[in-house]
Amino acid sequence: MEKKRPLILVSNDDGYQARGVRELMKCLKDMGEVVGVCPDAPRSGQSMAITVNSPLRVERVEDVDGMEMHRVNGTPVDCVKLAMHVALGGRQPDLVVAGINHGSNASINVVYSGTMGATFEGCAFGIPSIGFSLTDHHPEADFAPGLPFVRRLTELVLANGLPEGVCLNVNIPNTEKAPTEMRLARACRGNWSDEYKEYTDPHGHKFYWLTGKFRNDEPEAIDTDEWMLAHGIVSVVPSMLDRTAPVDTLPEWLFNIR
Amino acid sequence: MEKKRPLILVSNDDGYQARGVRELMKCLKDMGEVVGVCPDAPRSGQSMAITVNSPLRVERVEDVDGMEMHRVNGTPVDCVKLAMHVALGGRQPDLVVAGINHGSNASINVVYSGTMGATFEGCAFGIPSIGFSLTDHHPEADFAPGLPFVRRLTELVLANGLPEGVCLNVNIPNTEKAPTEMRLARACRGNWSDEYKEYTDPHGHKFYWLTGKFRNDEPEAIDTDEWMLAHGIVSVVPSMLDRTAPVDTLPEWLFNIR
Repeated sequence: MEKKRPLILVSNDDGYQARGVRELMKCLKDMGEVVGVCPDAPRSGQSMAITVNSPLRVERVEDVDGMEMHRVNGTPVDCVKLAMHVALGGRQPDLVVAGINHGSNASINVVYSGTMGATFEGCAFGIPSIGFSLTDHHPEADFAPGLPFVRRLTELVLANGLPEGVCLNVNIPNTEKAPTEMRLARACRGNWSDEYKEYTDPHGHKFYWLTGKFRNDEPEAIDTDEWMLAHGIVSVVPSMLDRTAPVDTLPEWLFNIR
Repeated sequence: MEKKRPLILVSNDDGYQARGVRELMKCLKDMGEVVGVCPDAPRSGQSMAITVNSPLRVERVEDVDGMEMHRVNGTPVDCVKLAMHVALGGRQPDLVVAGINHGSNASINVVYSGTMGATFEGCAFGIPSIGFSLTDHHPEADFAPGLPFVRRLTELVLANGLPEGVCLNVNIPNTEKAPTEMRLARACRGNWSDEYKEYTDPHGHKFYWLTGKFRNDEPEAIDTDEWMLAHGIVSVVPSMLDRTAPVDTLPEWLFNIR
């Protein structure tokens, strides 16, 4: 008996017109039935935001190389929810894949990322989910060198599944030479500094624009995503939906609150 | 020598005019110098979203019972970032407290919550951070019965700190009798079902509005936040900023990817 063709939901946060999501869909095309449900415009940095106070629409737009594409006037998480409830006609996908993001989602970026928001939402539905990002913000970024890894990892996840509540945050280094390796990693400790550029408007009022430099707090550690990206290696960070801290990390006094 | 008075940053996601944040500030008033930096309008469900593609403003508005209040045209995370970079004049707060949210942030809601977004952002800055929520969405909700717990836990965190990368997600049950106890808990497994109400606009096009029922996937487990709230107990869930899954939860094949 022939194995059923897997249904693969693709989303992103750069919007349905972004190159990254189109390259991703083409890369996955022969691995199953691929359906795209993406924001109608760029929604970077949307984390797991949901739209609670306004109406949402799902609109089918022009196919991508023969694959269905729908756009939603909402966040990446809205896209995954509306895919499940509307666009996929009630079918449960076998896999959710988000990206390929234009820009890194390594280290602390995982918590702000809309690409990873969509990935965690797939995970919340109990579906194996992977987020892919390329460390290059350019709209015309070259995704080709990373595609063999996208393909290989997607095949592995389709074959093996993922533990409940765990999804994958995959970052592809934008190096001159194509990456030759992919490795399991953990999110590097680090954060952003000098985060705002200050301006004065024509009326003398100040306003601020988010910017900043990433600060790596453990540049020597060789098991982090940042280390791997700096060494031309594709990093794969297994990431949890649940945020409860493990009991053994907690101080005594917390157990005695009343 | 007298101990320095702690600086306490307060934020929320219901906006600077919400009762919940005002009650919270009044409750904390004699414990330190309290400064509010809140969204200019309700921003529920914003998770850790950040504003990357538009300018932000910070505006000081009327004091709350003698305490400074600033409003920001952005998300809860934007508020904490702009507090650190602008509103607090470069001073590092000793504590970040978010809430009191009008509505539960127990179980899976922690990942969508803007209140917890502000709390995790405080944690990302290395500051002990607590998010408080009351399981009552009503704008005129009665926060008074929970305030003794808010006070007691805030004092404990000011005195003891929190482990790096761990913040607290505190939910207060909206029960007829005031809660009499507060306990350490873990986030209950559960999710939302029937998530959208479908409408048809006057032109015959469909649109959707987020709604749904919470489904508790482990109603018998007595160590979850949902169980405690159902039994009139204030739940305290230590929650991690880092999302990397522990190595011992991962399948063998993930260690062998190349």
